[in-house]
Amino acid sequence: MAKELTPQKENYAQWYLDLVIKADLAENSAVRGCMVIKPYGYAIWEKMQAQLDRMFKETGHVNAYFPLFIPKSFFSREAAHVEGFAKECAVVTHYRLKNDPEGKGVVVDPEARLEEELIIRPTSETIIWNTYRNWIQSHRDLPILINQWANVVRWEMRTRLFLRTAEFLWQEGHTAHATREEAVEETLKIIHLYADFAENHMAMPVIKGLKSENERFAGAVDTYCIESLMQDGKALQSGTSHFLGQNFAKAFDVTFANKEGVLDYVWASSWGVSTRLMGALVMAHSDDNGLVLPPRLAPIQVVIVPIYKSTEELARISARVDTLLPALKARGISVKYDDSDNRKPGWKFAEYELKGVPVRLAIGPRDLENGTVEVARRDTLEKMVKPFENIDAFIAGLLEEIQTNIYQKALVFRNKNIRKADSWDQFKQILADTGGFISAHWDGTAETEQKIKEETKATIRCIPLEGEAETGFCIYTGKPSARRVLFAVAY
Amino acid sequence: MAKELTPQKENYAQWYLDLVIKADLAENSAVRGCMVIKPYGYAIWEKMQAQLDRMFKETGHVNAYFPLFIPKSFFSREAAHVEGFAKECAVVTHYRLKNDPEGKGVVVDPEARLEEELIIRPTSETIIWNTYRNWIQSHRDLPILINQWANVVRWEMRTRLFLRTAEFLWQEGHTAHATREEAVEETLKIIHLYADFAENHMAMPVIKGLKSENERFAGAVDTYCIESLMQDGKALQSGTSHFLGQNFAKAFDVTFANKEGVLDYVWASSWGVSTRLMGALVMAHSDDNGLVLPPRLAPIQVVIVPIYKSTEELARISARVDTLLPALKARGISVKYDDSDNRKPGWKFAEYELKGVPVRLAIGPRDLENGTVEVARRDTLEKMVKPFENIDAFIAGLLEEIQTNIYQKALVFRNKNIRKADSWDQFKQILADTGGFISAHWDGTAETEQKIKEETKATIRCIPLEGEAETGFCIYTGKPSARRVLFAVAY
Repeated sequence: MAKELTPQKENYAQWYLDLVIKADLAENSAVRGCMVIKPYGYAIWEKMQAQLDRMFKETGHVNAYFPLFIPKSFFSREAAHVEGFAKECAVVTHYRLKNDPEGKGVVVDPEARLEEELIIRPTSETIIWNTYRNWIQSHRDLPILINQWANVVRWEMRTRLFLRTAEFLWQEGHTAHATREEAVEETLKIIHLYADFAENHMAMPVIKGLKSENERFAGAVDTYCIESLMQDGKALQSGTSHFLGQNFAKAFDVTFANKEGVLDYVWASSWGVSTRLMGALVMAHSDDNGLVLPPRLAPIQVVIVPIYKSTEELARISARVDTLLPALKARGISVKYDDSDNRKPGWKFAEYELKGVPVRLAIGPRDLENGTVEVARRDTLEKMVKPFENIDAFIAGLLEEIQTNIYQKALVFRNKNIRKADSWDQFKQILADTGGFISAHWDGTAETEQKIKEETKATIRCIPLEGEAETGFCIYTGKPSARRVLFAVAY
Repeated sequence: MAKELTPQKENYAQWYLDLVIKADLAENSAVRGCMVIKPYGYAIWEKMQAQLDRMFKETGHVNAYFPLFIPKSFFSREAAHVEGFAKECAVVTHYRLKNDPEGKGVVVDPEARLEEELIIRPTSETIIWNTYRNWIQSHRDLPILINQWANVVRWEMRTRLFLRTAEFLWQEGHTAHATREEAVEETLKIIHLYADFAENHMAMPVIKGLKSENERFAGAVDTYCIESLMQDGKALQSGTSHFLGQNFAKAFDVTFANKEGVLDYVWASSWGVSTRLMGALVMAHSDDNGLVLPPRLAPIQVVIVPIYKSTEELARISARVDTLLPALKARGISVKYDDSDNRKPGWKFAEYELKGVPVRLAIGPRDLENGTVEVARRDTLEKMVKPFENIDAFIAGLLEEIQTNIYQKALVFRNKNIRKADSWDQFKQILADTGGFISAHWDGTAETEQKIKEETKATIRCIPLEGEAETGFCIYTGKPSARRVLFAVAY
């Protein structure tokens, strides 16, 4: 029952954890920091995957698969990359177990030590660029527009389901181009694609921007991101797209003959979103009753609950429902008719609210008489009685309306929580009072950003791509600033 | 060009390797035993995945995701399982690298040693049954019908692209049931589902059967399999479905209260197919010109090549083709119009033959005049001139015909290569002359099977589920036999 969720106001972090577990999205596994994604959670992830995959393919990308393992030496090739990624990672050192000579199960066979240790990929730039070297000779081999769906591992010390786990699922795009312009264009195309996905499918407004040097991907020239705001006023980085310049091409010696026949290094982008989006989805919309899912990502869009006292009543209701199910399915609406007899309607109502099913229909004997059906919206918790006839058309429209409404609600909340700060005191006051994004001037140095982070935990989430550049003075140092940037405490 | 393939007759193994690489299916990576699945190969795998996933869901299964890592101690819980799987595996012992104090890149940080080593999953029964323990209390929690799409690692010493690689992609189903009967029913349902997929989508005939003890999955009570025959007369195990009894429930203490309220151990099945099917697909149908793909799994089903001398001719051909593309797409046919100007038609013809595109259309100036189009079938290499009008309907039918023809051809070949042997000499003679399946009597002992394997490399591929049981005498020992079984040398 929904009452078992810790209320958001009481403890937002605990509410999140309760909800992820009780709504059957995921749970912690026997392996520290690794989660089990349960069928209901995975069904939402599959919907995200399917939509993203469609969008990648529509923009000319193809999928491929590269090895899970990366030779240790590959990490040393790109100086910044090794600093960022090689530190906290899972290292394979042996390839065999043997029976314990003392009879205690199995032990690592010391004779099966690898000559060179293998790292479980934390991201695949190195192994992929080492592969691209053999695929690219001429400008005619470019561009390469490849995406990979994969699991990756980063040995995080403090983990939270979906938001930060040692192993997570993601997609990583790795593209190769003949010119700087094309690579930059690709990098930007993808950040817009991510924003489109977040806004139109997750119903989650995002701000597109450029990362400051401190927050840049290890090995990138520029990192673009989409940043969203959670209900507790903290920001969440929801996707990144990196312009890698020629850094990885140089590290792995990937050159091509351009149209003039001159050898040059290849230009690159990489980009990814992960199961972290599941956490964003939960924290963008849900409430104390449970999940609120945008219809486009809901595994079950409509649930129908019969209200009956006798099996004869149930039979009559089921006969009515049987006429509706094909009409809904024909409209591409996923529907579940829950006629299970071991739970009461009240329990079912609470359960499907917890699971975030966007529309609930209830049909009882009186509805049969009156030709009506009770329709309940998950987003507003509104109930209404509607004629049963042509209810499928009404539901199709309602699902669209819910999708829009969830987005609008999140947009209003997000916009209300972007505040300008023009002094250091004001900056700290906003953080203490409300959190959210703070639009403020910054002198452009990594040192200042670092000091602000140390004093407030707030970081520069991004330098927004949109909006006019207004000059001013850094809130921390008073030095000149070319434009405001967005600060926030982030997940 | 196709001429670069080693002919099958000259060296089948080399032909296979040439084809996998030249048709851009996969290649070896920098990591020993791990492959890169290239976009064209991955597109075929995606089609296999999509169809299998649809079939799993239609039969009530859902997807989920479990950790990549398995604690070492889990393997010791099930006695047979540890013997089968814990020996050749990738072992994670450390979770951090650090800068080499001597400045030589990065080294494993000896202080970041895991308390308990983690094994990269070679298969997930142990971690999943450890999870199921918390999910199952009562018969109302059963059945659990979960599938996982994942990568797994088995440290193979001799690897071949797709057929045997250290890392491979697969799906693994893991189901939990209240009764033995239900678990057996599930095990069999899946082996029939796999056979349906192999025959109707891969166009590859298979024999369904039970494995002998020697070939059984480590930890299973019974292993069912589908076995197919490659063009070189070797068999290939293409999918397995295991009835696990209560072995894993006992190893991980997974009990449930049955309808009478009595505690019992849960019954289990597990089943999987992998990227090995890609190898099977290649070796079931392809020829010295390249791949032959069944239309249902071909990423490109129809390619259109314009034959022209001037850009004006090309423009007229393209205008004609532009009327055809939407008609084909409306029928769900994937089509590519290759009007690239840097390759001659002859090069394109050879290239798409190599890639196994089922239907090729060529249109030249004379076709424009005559209202015709040249249609070439990849399976038979036949060419025919057809009216352009309504060609889309003709092609739709032709694709079905090709699908059927490829299957029939493989079926005739397979059936021709099942031979009865009634003596040990005859058995050896067949292996020496032709290979293929040998239907022979066997005394039912693991020792005899082992001796036959040592002397001939042939193993019992399966005890077929279909066909009448005929008694006789073991070809090797002369002892009584209840029925013939199928032997073959296998991949």
